[in-house]
Amino acid sequence: MKIAIIGGTGKEGKGLAYRWAKAGHAVTIGSRQLEKAQRIAKELNTENKEINLVIGLQNMDAAKQAELIVITVPFAAHIATLETIKDAVQGKIVVDVTVPLVPPKVSTVHIPAAGSAAMEAQAVLGEDVKVISAFQNVSYEKLMDDKAQISDVLVCGDDPEAKNLVLQLVADAGMKGFDAGALQNSIVSEGMTSVLININKKFGVHSAGIRIIGLEE
Amino acid sequence: MKIAIIGGTGKEGKGLAYRWAKAGHAVTIGSRQLEKAQRIAKELNTENKEINLVIGLQNMDAAKQAELIVITVPFAAHIATLETIKDAVQGKIVVDVTVPLVPPKVSTVHIPAAGSAAMEAQAVLGEDVKVISAFQNVSYEKLMDDKAQISDVLVCGDDPEAKNLVLQLVADAGMKGFDAGALQNSIVSEGMTSVLININKKFGVHSAGIRIIGLEE
Repeated sequence: MKIAIIGGTGKEGKGLAYRWAKAGHAVTIGSRQLEKAQRIAKELNTENKEINLVIGLQNMDAAKQAELIVITVPFAAHIATLETIKDAVQGKIVVDVTVPLVPPKVSTVHIPAAGSAAMEAQAVLGEDVKVISAFQNVSYEKLMDDKAQISDVLVCGDDPEAKNLVLQLVADAGMKGFDAGALQNSIVSEGMTSVLININKKFGVHSAGIRIIGLEE
Repeated sequence: MKIAIIGGTGKEGKGLAYRWAKAGHAVTIGSRQLEKAQRIAKELNTENKEINLVIGLQNMDAAKQAELIVITVPFAAHIATLETIKDAVQGKIVVDVTVPLVPPKVSTVHIPAAGSAAMEAQAVLGEDVKVISAFQNVSYEKLMDDKAQISDVLVCGDDPEAKNLVLQLVADAGMKGFDAGALQNSIVSEGMTSVLININKKFGVHSAGIRIIGLEE
């Protein structure tokens, strides 16, 4: 699958690029600066000879050539980034990983006016884009480590087919995904990141995550 | 500790009463109807000879004589119940277990105007009440089973001392509690219940829960 990771030069984006390229997907890293995107793609290719070739492009070009577009940008750049790629993603699936953290109080949940960052994405991109939210609770430090115990992934969205496709991408990336309901539910996975940041602080760790239990009766 | 469980004749309240009475706390079950409260208390005492005696009182009387008050009512009765006990809980700790479910779409997250049910409780009860939120993701079916694998408990609140006390009560009830940050974070644990209802449906189970992982590095 042709996947573009917008803001893919950040740690979360780079980690997802690694996992999907390893699973055989055609991954493009997007950045506002072409050179930066190309540098991170080259790093990934050089350090991991076994993965599918990752390429680097500017955000809009990355979005244009992809079937599925993943957004991993800081919340402060969320709306501006969405507006940049809006035309290029019409009719496609957009996976929003954005967490509405508002520094300096990143361990306190912030609810955007739209109800969540993902609902904000849906509002900006329009109804012809299938917005799915996922991966907010995954620690980037774990993504580069194939043996790490990694958080389960809550997947929210209103289009069942797009949601199933993203659940498959979660599995391809070596994680366990759960259908967490409508896009409106995304505030739970987004806000959970602030809760986990708080737990990280209390325990002096960096990668607290969640596991869904009680699935066998 | 003298604990009152308002709406304690429901399944969640009855389960918590059982767990705390077993741990030696003095538990009062509250209900709008005295007779119902007394009947459920008697049931608990008769079926579980080993636990501390549970008594039944009307909601306001239950709140009046307790040091700590737990609210386990349906969201539709939330504000009315808070107004009933408001005078009786001034200066005390109130643990809100309420989940803002709006039937029939209980698997979709509903964000109350105050930001969460717990924030709504704080607004109604006033600033002299220490509101803590907890236990929203615990399946009542698990509470009567001492050997059940049970959800971890996210504890939110703005008063560190009150929060620590509630974390101790979580442990007394045989569960693992986590400081999940400010009361403002309560929408995460409240909304998680809708996510878990959705997961229950998909898996055909009744008691999905969460576990916090990644605490050792």
